[in-house]
Amino acid sequence: MKFGKVDRNISKRLKEIVGNENVRMEEDYLEKYSKDETSGVITKKPDVVVFPTSVEQVSEIVKLANEYLVPITPRGAGTGLSGGAIPIHGGIVLSLEKMNRIVEFDPTNMTVTVEPGVITDEIQKLAEEHNLYYAGDPASSESSSIGGNIAENAGGTRVIKYGPTSHHVLGMELVTPTGEIVRYGGKMVKNVMGYDMIRLIVGSEGTLGIVTKIILRLIPKPKYFATLLIPFEKLEDSIKSVPEVIPTLGVLPSSIELMDKESVEMSKNFLNENIPNMDAEAHLIIELDSPDKESLVKEYMKLGDELMKMGAIEVYVADNRYQRSRIWKFRKAIAEGIIAFRPVHCMEDVSVPISGMPDVVKASYGIARKRDLEVLVFGHVGDGNMHVTFLKPVDMENRVWKEKLEEALKDLYELTSKLGGSITGEHGVGLKRRKYLGIFLSDHEIEFMRKIKKALDPKGILNPGKIF
Amino acid sequence: MKFGKVDRNISKRLKEIVGNENVRMEEDYLEKYSKDETSGVITKKPDVVVFPTSVEQVSEIVKLANEYLVPITPRGAGTGLSGGAIPIHGGIVLSLEKMNRIVEFDPTNMTVTVEPGVITDEIQKLAEEHNLYYAGDPASSESSSIGGNIAENAGGTRVIKYGPTSHHVLGMELVTPTGEIVRYGGKMVKNVMGYDMIRLIVGSEGTLGIVTKIILRLIPKPKYFATLLIPFEKLEDSIKSVPEVIPTLGVLPSSIELMDKESVEMSKNFLNENIPNMDAEAHLIIELDSPDKESLVKEYMKLGDELMKMGAIEVYVADNRYQRSRIWKFRKAIAEGIIAFRPVHCMEDVSVPISGMPDVVKASYGIARKRDLEVLVFGHVGDGNMHVTFLKPVDMENRVWKEKLEEALKDLYELTSKLGGSITGEHGVGLKRRKYLGIFLSDHEIEFMRKIKKALDPKGILNPGKIF
Repeated sequence: MKFGKVDRNISKRLKEIVGNENVRMEEDYLEKYSKDETSGVITKKPDVVVFPTSVEQVSEIVKLANEYLVPITPRGAGTGLSGGAIPIHGGIVLSLEKMNRIVEFDPTNMTVTVEPGVITDEIQKLAEEHNLYYAGDPASSESSSIGGNIAENAGGTRVIKYGPTSHHVLGMELVTPTGEIVRYGGKMVKNVMGYDMIRLIVGSEGTLGIVTKIILRLIPKPKYFATLLIPFEKLEDSIKSVPEVIPTLGVLPSSIELMDKESVEMSKNFLNENIPNMDAEAHLIIELDSPDKESLVKEYMKLGDELMKMGAIEVYVADNRYQRSRIWKFRKAIAEGIIAFRPVHCMEDVSVPISGMPDVVKASYGIARKRDLEVLVFGHVGDGNMHVTFLKPVDMENRVWKEKLEEALKDLYELTSKLGGSITGEHGVGLKRRKYLGIFLSDHEIEFMRKIKKALDPKGILNPGKIF
Repeated sequence: MKFGKVDRNISKRLKEIVGNENVRMEEDYLEKYSKDETSGVITKKPDVVVFPTSVEQVSEIVKLANEYLVPITPRGAGTGLSGGAIPIHGGIVLSLEKMNRIVEFDPTNMTVTVEPGVITDEIQKLAEEHNLYYAGDPASSESSSIGGNIAENAGGTRVIKYGPTSHHVLGMELVTPTGEIVRYGGKMVKNVMGYDMIRLIVGSEGTLGIVTKIILRLIPKPKYFATLLIPFEKLEDSIKSVPEVIPTLGVLPSSIELMDKESVEMSKNFLNENIPNMDAEAHLIIELDSPDKESLVKEYMKLGDELMKMGAIEVYVADNRYQRSRIWKFRKAIAEGIIAFRPVHCMEDVSVPISGMPDVVKASYGIARKRDLEVLVFGHVGDGNMHVTFLKPVDMENRVWKEKLEEALKDLYELTSKLGGSITGEHGVGLKRRKYLGIFLSDHEIEFMRKIKKALDPKGILNPGKIF
């Protein structure tokens, strides 16, 4: 497909649609919107960045783009980790940052209706003020937007118990790739009226529609929480304990996270804070929630005993908001530390059945060692989704790094595929992983997906060059 | 589309694929496979019923059907309530009854891999024997197959807390409408590799693919259960208590079911059993589960107090398996009673935001009264999904019944649409509801769905005449 460029006529039409102040072509804008938070992918400046403020404006922009064959790259908060928001074919970056209103909070139906630009954390806080709970919690919740969470079907720290973003979406309004405004679902919990378009759009990485409004389901806020920090002398023991622990406990923890020693070190340096047993090979973070305090105490006492038997050095229990938030802050700072201190890196997102977790972690170190790369391993060990992150050694040449990384990724992906896993659990394929899709899916499997893209977006206007 | 018939040549080819004994054209087979459990829809005999036993056979059948333009109606256990399994264009009924093996039970990864013909109850029992839990629970669990649950995205009695069928599916193998064998997902909990084909297929009513293998997620079995039976003097009070109760409790019950007086009477007559307070206007059934016994007791004591304040006559607590199963048996027998005693009926499946529940229930009686119809109301009041069921009065002529019913349905659907609800929460559109889709979805919204059907099934071979 040969795409058109945004010329004087098109930019004039865009200004008529969204107003002069919402069409930006200045160099600093083009530069800022040429990338997201993904390291190591190529960047590309758009011709123009537009900031619509209503669904009607989004619809008109998409119709204009179809008319002139100009590609549109939809964009949330720009915190993506697969290059999904990079306008690889130039054209229009359509930023949803100004569509950031909370449209309606409905405590009776336990729903909140929001525009895509709302930051996820804001939704969590609003719900909790009313004793309700938005269970989605990507580690980037303080900076990522709900629209971006939807585009990637964000996972995060509570998927084991509460499911990924797609489980929390009851309704949405979107603009189709040809510019029509459509609405699916609503405030009702159950709906099987035709195909599940909501779940098709969630995770479609901005290639099948631009979501302009979202109805999210809230649940009663759990009354009591306990966050356990558990250092292990041996990394292997920490991972092996996970599939043992869940059935014993008889209840799903909301989170089971792993930080290896290097991850802990990274966070420590970023925050200038310590946690106990810094020299342990690994730390687990396990969070439990419960409607009953005594029941919660029983659960974590039992869990603690089990973990001690499996090689834990100690089990630290945080059951107040301050201590809990310190642990989570430490966990969430790993990625920030990597971006700040080791900008040349490659953060992976492989997802495997939990029985394969020990293999993946062990192999990651072996793969890195073989290629003289550094590596750190952290992530959602309870659901088998691990952020193996390769770092360029400071003294390694860029050219060598690229070669070695390519070999390392190939090894990692082949192992993941062999274990029946996925190349991405929550960050998306985007630009970064599309060339590896064939390791995981057959031609028929990819083609069955592509038929949908071709049918819904015949001109290939929406986020071209992503996923496939 | 003009479809072909199954002639001697095609039936010979079918016999070569699945073996003589698995190709049936006898009158009693054609009769049995001309319908499902839906009342009041037209039936139609297929040309042939085939019983494949492997995915390769399914693939060959689909390819053959594409070659000769013969429609295929996939079929599970035939318990559907929207006419989805009726071969309205004749051709082949492809029954999955003989693909009923449990392929693998994997306690470490907490998954079970099954063929579509397995009865849902069998999966529940297998899991529970190993202290695990399959959380899906359509009221028809003892007779419906997991493949049918997937085709309709079955809901049932535990959706409030655990979500519909689609939340429990981690992976699937399917035959596409053009006969290719594809596999998506696996035993991993998280996977965002391309479009969410699994969620697109779940609920697609056999129109986008034939599922031949399913990987289901299991969770730890809750240790303690309490099932509360709560008669209310006034129906209205019972419904109003629902949105009050959930936030107060601070925890999601797994079930909140409603039976009105007529539903209770129906079940009583079918089972020849009583429950307390038969003269109450309504009974609620609320089930709680918990990892801790004392915590569970506290919860139901608190809940009971609240319900008494809201007009409950009494709160009966069943906390052992025998008593609990008696209550559930009573609830599940309503539909059986209707089918047995009042075969000419129309069971609806409207789903609304819970704030609209009192309106729907109240209006249902008014609508029935205005048309001289009988009605009973029961269902999943906790998630806003109600089985309003109109009954033909015994002395009403069939012609009159059809006219009056048509008017009643129109009223019910228009109210549901006005309340922002859906025509179907769990039974599907199928044959029964397709002509009403336009009340709920715009042309653009329907067309956006249809484009997918056309792209994936260009010859319209799979289950034609359903949904649209």
